[in-house]
Amino acid sequence: MHYTKLEIKDLNRIKRLRLMNSITGIKSANLIGTLSESGNTNLAIFSSVVHLGSDPALIGFVMRPNNNVKRDTLNNILETKHFTINHVNSNFVEKAHYTSLNFNEDQSEFDYCNLESFYIDNYSPPFVKESKVKIGLKLHEIIPIKSNGCKFIIGEVEHVLLDDGINFIAEGSIDLEDSNSVGVGGLNSYYTMNKIAELPFPRLSTTPASEMNKFWKRKI
Amino acid sequence: MHYTKLEIKDLNRIKRLRLMNSITGIKSANLIGTLSESGNTNLAIFSSVVHLGSDPALIGFVMRPNNNVKRDTLNNILETKHFTINHVNSNFVEKAHYTSLNFNEDQSEFDYCNLESFYIDNYSPPFVKESKVKIGLKLHEIIPIKSNGCKFIIGEVEHVLLDDGINFIAEGSIDLEDSNSVGVGGLNSYYTMNKIAELPFPRLSTTPASEMNKFWKRKI
Repeated sequence: MHYTKLEIKDLNRIKRLRLMNSITGIKSANLIGTLSESGNTNLAIFSSVVHLGSDPALIGFVMRPNNNVKRDTLNNILETKHFTINHVNSNFVEKAHYTSLNFNEDQSEFDYCNLESFYIDNYSPPFVKESKVKIGLKLHEIIPIKSNGCKFIIGEVEHVLLDDGINFIAEGSIDLEDSNSVGVGGLNSYYTMNKIAELPFPRLSTTPASEMNKFWKRKI
Repeated sequence: MHYTKLEIKDLNRIKRLRLMNSITGIKSANLIGTLSESGNTNLAIFSSVVHLGSDPALIGFVMRPNNNVKRDTLNNILETKHFTINHVNSNFVEKAHYTSLNFNEDQSEFDYCNLESFYIDNYSPPFVKESKVKIGLKLHEIIPIKSNGCKFIIGEVEHVLLDDGINFIAEGSIDLEDSNSVGVGGLNSYYTMNKIAELPFPRLSTTPASEMNKFWKRKI
């Protein structure tokens, strides 16, 4: 099946949304927790969280221009400069999904979606207690994306909280099967993970690039 | 387990890389195909592809500052303004993974990693023939990320090629279990997908936000 640019443009809106949101492949499902200056908590599901660097430890996510629910997240981050990122786990997918309904500013998604907030000392934004992987960040940079009015929000990692049950693959890498972390496909399909391969870290590989042709022949 | 910013800073480099690359959750595994002005093809695996919008259809990905392999990708995109994004499928994970080795500019990863190129009429960059989901894009915008020297590369979708075997969930949304698309955790763990939930599109939900408290009570 081949869709050209014109054919994509001509699709009905919902079909185009579904196709375009699904063709990039699996996306992480994360809940972003924030606190407003006046003390209201907010929680919103995002599928655009992306790793940017390890030293300093930076994480970014994309804020769409026209989404009422997600504007609370941006407003709160601008007001209080901090936010949390919390993995969605398979046992609370539905609660996480419905944070994207159109709640009023004073209606906390924690209450309306039956999720519990969790706090650590000297750090104000709410984590999601149910989440096995919780990250606390400080606003670092907001980059406007001229192409379509999105904003790219970048935070520096200040806290990483991992549930005791989580195992590491090699040293430092979280096992995402183990942590029950889910991914999103398109707008509303949720997936759990099956680990199928654990390959050598390329920079530490014992096979040099120029030998790869021989490497495949040895494998046959 | 709680890591603070200082403790993260003090981890050894590899452990910090592994932890920071894995805590954002599952990432899509995609091969980006490009062509240089002088006619060399290049292929590189990326885990930072992100949906930006559907109309116009825009997709972005993050280019790290210090990676020799991936610089070919950027140079080629600057030279010829086009690139392809191709899902990594479970049957060629290893080949895709090793595109991140340090090949010379004139060594095509297609040859060295045993993957086949595929072309369509009037469109120059190479697709990956083995990939069940192929996207052809035109460079739209390059955004420097001041925080750490990364670049955010944005392309507009010009072609979407889907294998005949792929089914849709609802109208337009690709079934990622069906397409054998894989995700990456951390630097080198690969996962396939298990669909666990298909929830109503929030904007079309029949339950208003203000009724969500009752919604959960009905579910118990």
